[in-house]
Amino acid sequence: MRPSKRAPEELRKVTLERGVARYAEGSCLVTFGETRVLCTASLEERGPSWLRGSGKGWITAEYAMLPRATHERNRREVNAGKPSGRTQEIQRLIGRSLRAVVNLPAIGERQIVIDCDVLQADGGTRTASITGAWVALHECFTWMRSRSIISVDPMRDHVAAVSCGIHKGTPILDLDYAEDSAAETDANFVITGSGGIVEVQGTAEVTPFSEEEFLGLLRLAKSGVAQLVALQKQAVG
Amino acid sequence: MRPSKRAPEELRKVTLERGVARYAEGSCLVTFGETRVLCTASLEERGPSWLRGSGKGWITAEYAMLPRATHERNRREVNAGKPSGRTQEIQRLIGRSLRAVVNLPAIGERQIVIDCDVLQADGGTRTASITGAWVALHECFTWMRSRSIISVDPMRDHVAAVSCGIHKGTPILDLDYAEDSAAETDANFVITGSGGIVEVQGTAEVTPFSEEEFLGLLRLAKSGVAQLVALQKQAVG
Amino acid sequence: MRPSKRAPEELRKVTLERGVARYAEGSCLVTFGETRVLCTASLEERGPSWLRGSGKGWITAEYAMLPRATHERNRREVNAGKPSGRTQEIQRLIGRSLRAVVNLPAIGERQIVIDCDVLQADGGTRTASITGAWVALHECFTWMRSRSIISVDPMRDHVAAVSCGIHKGTPILDLDYAEDSAAETDANFVITGSGGIVEVQGTAEVTPFSEEEFLGLLRLAKSGVAQLVALQKQAVG
Amino acid sequence: MRPSKRAPEELRKVTLERGVARYAEGSCLVTFGETRVLCTASLEERGPSWLRGSGKGWITAEYAMLPRATHERNRREVNAGKPSGRTQEIQRLIGRSLRAVVNLPAIGERQIVIDCDVLQADGGTRTASITGAWVALHECFTWMRSRSIISVDPMRDHVAAVSCGIHKGTPILDLDYAEDSAAETDANFVITGSGGIVEVQGTAEVTPFSEEEFLGLLRLAKSGVAQLVALQKQAVG
Amino acid sequence: MRPSKRAPEELRKVTLERGVARYAEGSCLVTFGETRVLCTASLEERGPSWLRGSGKGWITAEYAMLPRATHERNRREVNAGKPSGRTQEIQRLIGRSLRAVVNLPAIGERQIVIDCDVLQADGGTRTASITGAWVALHECFTWMRSRSIISVDPMRDHVAAVSCGIHKGTPILDLDYAEDSAAETDANFVITGSGGIVEVQGTAEVTPFSEEEFLGLLRLAKSGVAQLVALQKQAVG
Amino acid sequence: MRPSKRAPEELRKVTLERGVARYAEGSCLVTFGETRVLCTASLEERGPSWLRGSGKGWITAEYAMLPRATHERNRREVNAGKPSGRTQEIQRLIGRSLRAVVNLPAIGERQIVIDCDVLQADGGTRTASITGAWVALHECFTWMRSRSIISVDPMRDHVAAVSCGIHKGTPILDLDYAEDSAAETDANFVITGSGGIVEVQGTAEVTPFSEEEFLGLLRLAKSGVAQLVALQKQAVG
Repeated sequence: MRPSKRAPEELRKVTLERGVARYAEGSCLVTFGETRVLCTASLEERGPSWLRGSGKGWITAEYAMLPRATHERNRREVNAGKPSGRTQEIQRLIGRSLRAVVNLPAIGERQIVIDCDVLQADGGTRTASITGAWVALHECFTWMRSRSIISVDPMRDHVAAVSCGIHKGTPILDLDYAEDSAAETDANFVITGSGGIVEVQGTAEVTPFSEEEFLGLLRLAKSGVAQLVALQKQAVG
Repeated sequence: MRPSKRAPEELRKVTLERGVARYAEGSCLVTFGETRVLCTASLEERGPSWLRGSGKGWITAEYAMLPRATHERNRREVNAGKPSGRTQEIQRLIGRSLRAVVNLPAIGERQIVIDCDVLQADGGTRTASITGAWVALHECFTWMRSRSIISVDPMRDHVAAVSCGIHKGTPILDLDYAEDSAAETDANFVITGSGGIVEVQGTAEVTPFSEEEFLGLLRLAKSGVAQLVALQKQAVG
Repeated sequence: MRPSKRAPEELRKVTLERGVARYAEGSCLVTFGETRVLCTASLEERGPSWLRGSGKGWITAEYAMLPRATHERNRREVNAGKPSGRTQEIQRLIGRSLRAVVNLPAIGERQIVIDCDVLQADGGTRTASITGAWVALHECFTWMRSRSIISVDPMRDHVAAVSCGIHKGTPILDLDYAEDSAAETDANFVITGSGGIVEVQGTAEVTPFSEEEFLGLLRLAKSGVAQLVALQKQAVG
Repeated sequence: MRPSKRAPEELRKVTLERGVARYAEGSCLVTFGETRVLCTASLEERGPSWLRGSGKGWITAEYAMLPRATHERNRREVNAGKPSGRTQEIQRLIGRSLRAVVNLPAIGERQIVIDCDVLQADGGTRTASITGAWVALHECFTWMRSRSIISVDPMRDHVAAVSCGIHKGTPILDLDYAEDSAAETDANFVITGSGGIVEVQGTAEVTPFSEEEFLGLLRLAKSGVAQLVALQKQAVG
Repeated sequence: MRPSKRAPEELRKVTLERGVARYAEGSCLVTFGETRVLCTASLEERGPSWLRGSGKGWITAEYAMLPRATHERNRREVNAGKPSGRTQEIQRLIGRSLRAVVNLPAIGERQIVIDCDVLQADGGTRTASITGAWVALHECFTWMRSRSIISVDPMRDHVAAVSCGIHKGTPILDLDYAEDSAAETDANFVITGSGGIVEVQGTAEVTPFSEEEFLGLLRLAKSGVAQLVALQKQAVG
Repeated sequence: MRPSKRAPEELRKVTLERGVARYAEGSCLVTFGETRVLCTASLEERGPSWLRGSGKGWITAEYAMLPRATHERNRREVNAGKPSGRTQEIQRLIGRSLRAVVNLPAIGERQIVIDCDVLQADGGTRTASITGAWVALHECFTWMRSRSIISVDPMRDHVAAVSCGIHKGTPILDLDYAEDSAAETDANFVITGSGGIVEVQGTAEVTPFSEEEFLGLLRLAKSGVAQLVALQKQAVG
């Protein structure tokens, strides 16, 4: 029995609420159980200087946690003077994941900045961020089309993410914080609506894992992402 | 007529919601119209080293805005490597305001960190922060008493804050962003439940103001704070 | 009896010496008793980029203390990598105070940088800085007019500043360091030559203060500033 | 045909030279073709403060590139004031990979710092670093045992790493820089001597990949790591 | 003829005024012509941690320029986040020069911090700093002996410094800013009261110099330092 | 007898190996005994902005040590956020030394960046860096001429550097780390192929030195540099 009492292949309750930030071009409040992330998409007409003349747009992401999103208060990264290695890893992952399903030339030479701010953290903040950011980005594209800034929808597919792990020998889906701490292996999967793999990151916390175990995790992830994509469809429908 | 159509002495709709952060010892989501601030209070058994042996506790505050809390996206301060001067001014003000109504020795040699994170900004974020932080701090003291960490309530009085300004020659209360941009004079008042003044900050944006004008603002502020204190009483009642 | 033996409404000996920095366009060494601040005004033909096309000029200020201006040596802020919150508050205050009495379009699209460096600190360094900076700025405008860089005097009024406090229940003017440490309430007033209030900052160190107490401080400040303005007139006459 | 003319499953020429740093407790110069990394292992009797009382040791890693290791000169990270996100990702990966095959309590409450400095970069610097760092760490443990600092060998297994990618639809092993730039998918595998997977990181640069493609890469990686482990055995034999 | 019209071996007017900083244990305002440096000596009972148990004291120095000490205003180093390379070179030089004439064990395990703040700069600020700092340090030792903190005078000799250069082929002493800009070679000499050389730094700005030229500079420096030492004796006499 | 058993005027074994970095326009691995420095020269078509319109080129240098180049591991400077004062002193010295023998207008408005990375440190790293950097720069100029980027050789002379010191009263040449730690006086000389002095830096570690002692060091340095220049000729011949 996993700590959360859920079945191995059972997601937490997931909600995706659009339009939660009054000023942003797109936004989504995503929850995976007690994990809550506010995602916004901001259109910037002036992107980085290297975009000029490239004929395409760019999507970048930033990620942060409120200091008391967690059980113990964390120091604000601004007071350390720089984002931590973990933060940088996550924001690079979010950016890559979204770019993989976007037709960048269709955006024009503009930049869209995704902000994922974790209001409450109970495990899986990076995968929740990707899943919610897709909705915010979709809303931003709709906003742009309604103002004729772009004529074609740049979104080529859905993308969503979920974590999996091996807990007492059993592969389980969508780990909360307690499960993550107890798992032998931790993997994050970013998968598109059509089932293509965009990112795989697997780490053995204690003992190395086998190919079979890894495939077990991948199968769980695919079924989890399929459910998340269905929720994204509802959210933007 | 003021831009918001409110009467000169009319507050925006203000809400104070307690218990919104699962892990914090105290929390409050405060809204003043479209301005929304999440305030948490975190108890730290180990305060700064200079507390040791002092026989008293300390309350400090940190303040930040989500990048897309505003009309235009702001750069995260972590990427500039340090909090701005404005941020530092505000967090010092929040800390001083709360300490003015707390019996610090009654906390023991502990520190309570107040975090005020602005989710959406439509003017008056610092005054909303102080008003909401008082509720979070109150909840934290209740939590401490319920666990017998302290025996006496360290809270000596309410404290709340509100902005006032002169708009086209008329003193008005609780300015939103549009009003703040148009006002000739901008003042923030931090006042206790018993009507004592804790902080006064008045700035002439364009033309200096007179003693009479300043007194007009102070009177508006006192009436506004009285209403805010009543809402605080409801919130913690 | 106040610690300095002065009468409650008595300023320290104040001197304002012009022309003390050989290379600056304007300069003033200001002393308030043992507090000594060197103020310079530097004309920069190229201001910040946002000035271009605005049709007006800008005045900004920087403030610092020599490490051994004080009883105990302070760490240089450069070694902390950034100015402290207190330093930033003070330099923002000096800049706002001067801009309030200057006709910015009359400067043209130029920037004047005021540097206030505290050589010795015995309380009231920010108010001494503002009072002396006005003289340095005046000298800078005279220099500019003598070279026909500008044709109209941009200075619209005097501005000076003074601190007040409540010590053992009595309002007192122009606190030195010992008095400041002992005062219950501390307030800084920035007031123009014609008596308009530019900035008011009042803080209750221990117990909140009443409207009447605050008005008592404001009256002291007005009389103090009137004396400071008379000294400024002598200094630039 | 792949750009390097190698067969799809063919490694570059790999060398592992021990004892190359006179002062370090362990060292290895590793080359994968034109990629050259100097790895050292430094024993520190005083580890981070959280080690004290934990009853175990720690292995951490740092990674950097000489500015002209690459085709175009890179700015030194010290001049940016902080390591880049990429650098932090890599050094976290190296540390985790080594810790996965070490019996940490057998080290005692000491820290071993692995430094991987890239002298020349032609793709695969992170995987070469892990492969070489294992040899440096092995030499460090031998040094410690020869001085009776530890009595049991803390090394539980080999660990090595290799990159794989899909180039024009074909899975290929050990990509050089030109191949990495041209590949559709890029994956890094960290695998133990006994074939367990420690880390998997796969990224679709352009189009998502399928489960079958991913398994193809994993098989290549396993065969590559087996060869690398054989070379490690020779190097420390 | 040199730009300043002085004879080649002629110092500028040099003054050394003691006791200029009310709170410091030692201080000296040194002028070399238009160059003005405020030097203070601050006794710190707690030196750096590596002093503990060493049985000796330490002398360290910090150096800075006011932003408008120069013809053009310089940016404050605090805004760059770190002292420049030039600043660090100078403060290391001042510290080494003073330590060379001090009996460090006679200070006890204390640190004395020398601050040299350039109020006005017309060339030779580092050599003026050393010359004035010796006087401030002497005053500090006198202060310590008068309070019986130390019983023996730790000062073993005088030390002073002067710059020399080759201008149109002629060696000249004590260059002002205009001369320094025009000189082919620039050298700084730190020499004791008994004529021993503590530091020599010579740099060919344009063309390398010969041994003979260098010896010419050294002779000028010795005569200049002898005069400076005589002035130091008067100052502390 | 000196610690290294060498004769007082005897250099360590010195080697200069060209062409060691595949991608750099010029490179040299220089060894002085156990001291090993990798020097590269990188041509940058775009130099700093102040070069534009100046009609000349620039040569700048950067210097760093691998963390475990030394007996004890050093912290990476990137983790301190800035290069140390020592590092900055050395990189400024390397740049000045090379510029003194280069005809800067002959380079055109380009910048050449010299990187000196110390792989192993046993004293004399800055002098080894200068000596090796000259070879890397020479190779870079040859590369530029072979591609007709420049038509005239900008190199006007050789330049090399060596350290000298006084050990137990005897002047000795080319100190290793143990000798440097034991020497009373330490001096670095940068001298051209034709015997002109470019830089002299002498420091009395303990007791001041006399003119005669200094001349003794200078003579040793001249003979040492003559040998180093002969080795440079072989290396580039």
